[in-house]
Amino acid sequence: MRHEKYMRLAIEQALKGQGETYTNPLVGAVIVKDNVVLGKGYHTHYGAAHAEVEAIDSLTSLEESIQATLYVTLEPCAHTGKTPPCVERIIAGGFKQVVIGQRDPNPLVAGRGVALLQAAGIEVIENILRDEAYRINLIYNHFHETKLPYVTLKYTSSLDGKIAAKRGVRTNLSGSETWQDVQIEREKYQAILVGSETALVDNPSLTVRNPQGKQGLTRIIIDRSGRLTGKLMLFTDTSQPTWVFTENSNLKQRLTHQHVRLFFAELWTIEQILMVIAKEGIQSVFVEGGAKILHAFINGGYYQQLLSYVTPHLLGSEGVDAIGGAIVQQPNLKLISMEQLGTDFKLQWLPQEKGGLVCSLELLKKWVGYKK
Amino acid sequence: MRHEKYMRLAIEQALKGQGETYTNPLVGAVIVKDNVVLGKGYHTHYGAAHAEVEAIDSLTSLEESIQATLYVTLEPCAHTGKTPPCVERIIAGGFKQVVIGQRDPNPLVAGRGVALLQAAGIEVIENILRDEAYRINLIYNHFHETKLPYVTLKYTSSLDGKIAAKRGVRTNLSGSETWQDVQIEREKYQAILVGSETALVDNPSLTVRNPQGKQGLTRIIIDRSGRLTGKLMLFTDTSQPTWVFTENSNLKQRLTHQHVRLFFAELWTIEQILMVIAKEGIQSVFVEGGAKILHAFINGGYYQQLLSYVTPHLLGSEGVDAIGGAIVQQPNLKLISMEQLGTDFKLQWLPQEKGGLVCSLELLKKWVGYKK
Repeated sequence: MRHEKYMRLAIEQALKGQGETYTNPLVGAVIVKDNVVLGKGYHTHYGAAHAEVEAIDSLTSLEESIQATLYVTLEPCAHTGKTPPCVERIIAGGFKQVVIGQRDPNPLVAGRGVALLQAAGIEVIENILRDEAYRINLIYNHFHETKLPYVTLKYTSSLDGKIAAKRGVRTNLSGSETWQDVQIEREKYQAILVGSETALVDNPSLTVRNPQGKQGLTRIIIDRSGRLTGKLMLFTDTSQPTWVFTENSNLKQRLTHQHVRLFFAELWTIEQILMVIAKEGIQSVFVEGGAKILHAFINGGYYQQLLSYVTPHLLGSEGVDAIGGAIVQQPNLKLISMEQLGTDFKLQWLPQEKGGLVCSLELLKKWVGYKK
Repeated sequence: MRHEKYMRLAIEQALKGQGETYTNPLVGAVIVKDNVVLGKGYHTHYGAAHAEVEAIDSLTSLEESIQATLYVTLEPCAHTGKTPPCVERIIAGGFKQVVIGQRDPNPLVAGRGVALLQAAGIEVIENILRDEAYRINLIYNHFHETKLPYVTLKYTSSLDGKIAAKRGVRTNLSGSETWQDVQIEREKYQAILVGSETALVDNPSLTVRNPQGKQGLTRIIIDRSGRLTGKLMLFTDTSQPTWVFTENSNLKQRLTHQHVRLFFAELWTIEQILMVIAKEGIQSVFVEGGAKILHAFINGGYYQQLLSYVTPHLLGSEGVDAIGGAIVQQPNLKLISMEQLGTDFKLQWLPQEKGGLVCSLELLKKWVGYKK
């Protein structure tokens, strides 16, 4: 129970870096000797010192780390990245014990940190509050484990599950609170993805105020048949990159903008598109529809979260279905949170196919007593 | 503020009769003199003494009511029904003042109670916590004001607004908590209404454990073309009356059961059906679909509440829409409550066409500090 107590403090530390560390994970560390917390630290932002180093640097003297225990939410790194490897500092510090929340799934670490510590005679205890430590880096973990981006599907529908009053017509359903919440959600991802129908009918710019990741938010359009024109906001707004996945090789004559990248193939499956996106270093994608795109992602099971915003409208049977096709296999969705947003409400669902259910970040924050 | 304080106590009294007084309203009364509560009472069940009489009878001596103030949630009655008129007892009691929550919309009272009290020299103060007093008898008030039953529309759909995987196929979406909640909701009404499609596809018995009202729950089917057969549960189960509204006069040869009443017309509108139901003394109807019936009620605006139960399924575009037709005019729905029921959740909506928004009974109970 002692280990859990200090790991909880380390998780609380880790959460302080939220939104600043991409594409690095959130990490927190706590140094304890004789049941006294001597040092704390967290990874504050991408490129900054790692949490273990922050914690060691917070000690008042070098002697304090000798025979102490280091609690760290993620396996310490063994490689030189933006900063030298953490294991070196830990070994040099004379620690007796290192307690770890979860192993780092990043192939650059993946057990090498643990091995080096043990080789240096330091006792390593693993998987303390593993689920909670895993939860704070859901996207990072998913990306490194599956080599695919973490995908959230999002749609806004009427109470009767329709996203527009008629095909080809933009219907504004969201209240202002929902609109704002969607902005906040978008900021959590490195890319937004929509289909060509949405791009043409809604003509969105899909920009985001505070994009995650060093390259800014990437706007991704699936336009198999090549219907897009250069006059759409996605092309006239050059503030963020726009990528187009198409099966029509003629599209390259039409879309010649500097900020546009075309990905051509004879046939694009959702999985192939996600593989390409992952190879480009994008860890997370926010998929905003439309109906056919959502259908393709749901039917293939290519999503880790579903956000549905439901508004107080009834659009009837002439409306456009939120999911544009037949469902092959019923997903096993679990309601994680439910929130009223003005006139609308927001539902967060997780598919349970892969067993383990992961709680919401809000619940985790409550649990550790996190305060900003 | 003094009046509000004691009216709140009277509302709390009134709520104690919940579920027992149909087709009478809930009424509570409190007797106060020199800022001391001397007596309390409520209408305990249909046929029992009225709240005012219960409060007067709770006094320790007859002198206590002299020059006292009577707080009563609903205008005292002036007619002899199951019991003698309350105004007589109030006048005989020597009260100085009567404070009333709301006037009784029942044409048998409707201001006559107030007039008689005033004629006897008693000061009458009206509309103290009128909205709250009105709320506790939503169905009763609606019925007497509009001469139509209070209608709640209910459906259970997948997350994407579908009520079945395919037309003509029964799809069980509800979790057990939802199923139980629907039973509890049904008990609040005097009638359940479904369309012939639901009767044929689902073959429900639509029975209820504790039906409201002296005649028990009435099961009402709209079967315009006359498709029903006598082998359906609604006809083989004889425990509760079944009424069928049809435009096919031949149906009477097929449905000859003792507990069945046929209502024939060349053309039935929803309004005409509701008028007939009201004339038969039914104050409240729980409409459980299917899609065409819901559509007809929504398009005509013939509903006072919408309950949607949403389940964690995605049925896709081959599923059956919850609302089976085009919506002529967007209803202005207001979300009143949102509740998780196991895997599902329940949403309570009120249409705001008629202005005033009435809070939920649960909120009202919290507000008055009601304890069972």
